[in-house]
Amino acid sequence: MAIKKIGSQTVKFDNPPIINGTSTTVGPKEGEGPLSEYFDVVLKDDLYGEKSWELSESKMLRETVKAAIQNSNKKISDMEYMLSGDLLNQLMSASFAARDLGIPFFGLYGACSTMTESLSLGSMIIDGGYADNLIAVTSSHFSSAERQFRFPLEHGNQRKPTAHWTVTGAGAAVLSSYGNGPIINYVTTGKVVDYGIKDANNMGAAMAPSAADTIVKHFEDTGLSTDYYDLIVTGDLGQIGKEITEELVLDKGYNILNNYNDCGLLIFDNKAQDTHAGGSGCGCSACVFCGYIYKELMKKNLNRVLLISTGALLSVTSTQQGQSIPGIAHAVSIINQGS
Amino acid sequence: MAIKKIGSQTVKFDNPPIINGTSTTVGPKEGEGPLSEYFDVVLKDDLYGEKSWELSESKMLRETVKAAIQNSNKKISDMEYMLSGDLLNQLMSASFAARDLGIPFFGLYGACSTMTESLSLGSMIIDGGYADNLIAVTSSHFSSAERQFRFPLEHGNQRKPTAHWTVTGAGAAVLSSYGNGPIINYVTTGKVVDYGIKDANNMGAAMAPSAADTIVKHFEDTGLSTDYYDLIVTGDLGQIGKEITEELVLDKGYNILNNYNDCGLLIFDNKAQDTHAGGSGCGCSACVFCGYIYKELMKKNLNRVLLISTGALLSVTSTQQGQSIPGIAHAVSIINQGS
Repeated sequence: MAIKKIGSQTVKFDNPPIINGTSTTVGPKEGEGPLSEYFDVVLKDDLYGEKSWELSESKMLRETVKAAIQNSNKKISDMEYMLSGDLLNQLMSASFAARDLGIPFFGLYGACSTMTESLSLGSMIIDGGYADNLIAVTSSHFSSAERQFRFPLEHGNQRKPTAHWTVTGAGAAVLSSYGNGPIINYVTTGKVVDYGIKDANNMGAAMAPSAADTIVKHFEDTGLSTDYYDLIVTGDLGQIGKEITEELVLDKGYNILNNYNDCGLLIFDNKAQDTHAGGSGCGCSACVFCGYIYKELMKKNLNRVLLISTGALLSVTSTQQGQSIPGIAHAVSIINQGS
Repeated sequence: MAIKKIGSQTVKFDNPPIINGTSTTVGPKEGEGPLSEYFDVVLKDDLYGEKSWELSESKMLRETVKAAIQNSNKKISDMEYMLSGDLLNQLMSASFAARDLGIPFFGLYGACSTMTESLSLGSMIIDGGYADNLIAVTSSHFSSAERQFRFPLEHGNQRKPTAHWTVTGAGAAVLSSYGNGPIINYVTTGKVVDYGIKDANNMGAAMAPSAADTIVKHFEDTGLSTDYYDLIVTGDLGQIGKEITEELVLDKGYNILNNYNDCGLLIFDNKAQDTHAGGSGCGCSACVFCGYIYKELMKKNLNRVLLISTGALLSVTSTQQGQSIPGIAHAVSIINQGS
């Protein structure tokens, strides 16, 4: 068998999966942000005709899956696996969507790193020959996340300057063994990294060390130069986490200052939209990737992108028990065929 | 490339992963049950020297991983991936253990189906050539689960006759590309199935349709006869769910009455130990498989086993919002080499 593992944490694909189509659904606030034109569906009301935010989030995820499958010229019955997760306790959004869709289901939880977790495992499933088509999808919802992790919205609490704004959105990508879209040529799987940050209102600082660890490992394992990529983009580190990551990566001898950005900074105009440190949530990197980045890849305005979704593995219980916030980040390299 | 997918939901492995070693840790009540002699570590106190049940559960998971690696004559640094999940919100048990172990980590959530979810994805990773060694592990804890899903223990509430008893335990298995242990030759990935059960105190009935669906699909896809297996064993359906599953499978033309049992019925003496419908939790099928079944396979008292861990995809929020309880079940076929 060909050696597929390179270095200690990276896989190089012999039969790279093709991203044949994507779709995105976002909330009203995201629809007013700088990437508005890249999103397929912008909701007028974040309840989406449902009785609860959780059911709305699950509907977003489900409908986004259907749209991505349609955009790929496939049928739901073509999908051999659905790899999906979200931020809600016990994956309420993904589980109920998987029930309605009837696709064999692997539930994943990597906090806001779930988009690249699903793309990583999905790529192995396609490259390994276990499926010809599958769907990778995640979601988050500002109102369901606030209720679960923080305070009731009715409480109207003041948010810290270091706080993030959870993206209301779902992003889905169809991975196939054949087709003409961009390919996934490498995945680098992250370790859980914890620098001891305990401030649940400063997730950027908590996640930055794991992002830096995975980025450095990716370049060590592949031997690629950082300028191989047009864009290196983390999931939802925001302004504070981005600056820490740049420094930590530079300390290890890799300069990403010229081609690095963060999905949490791209999706909102933080000053005009009052989103403080930036966007966050599984839906943040999912929508920025499946919307903006995928469409720019298709237009050849981008040709090589390293996407590193970033997750903070805290829970209300772990915070209440005084634990620090571990982070995790998985990197996925997406390039245009022939680039 | 060889065709690895057979039927619609099953994969047959060309390079089947070998289970080189396992380990289990259980709580005091499980240590008094019928399978006591099969568990490696029986805790005297379910706090395990920690300040909370959640930290105790995470320590169980971590220490069980270390023991399974030792039982496989490997080192922690040999493990290329850790596939793990648990029942706690945001996988507190698995995430904090992964932090301490430093193994590249994929977090999974399939409720009590997580053991076979981790074995399924782990098998694809080994068979596909992405790793030579990895660890699959899950846990649950009676006291952390009661607190999160039901009532404070101090409340002393009466339990319904249809209720299950969450197993306090962790089970870990090392999967490798070479070795002498039993192999995983097939995996059948489940769909989410929902018959509309809303009684969170009758999880067996909620999960049985998904178990039956996956069992029937396994035999349809593989063309195997039900008597190929010495033992067909579901995760935690308990007495009620087991009877429903037998009937549903028989309705589809497959008779499993002679070689079918349930981990939730094996782990406790339900009458003597007052565990009502039976054991449950991710740790139930994990400990019964990694303890009893694995050791009986090694002794050749069992040669071919179909393990179907079963999950109820409810959350406190979904129940409070009046939703029904979807179920999921993944099947893994484990056989002795040359059997």
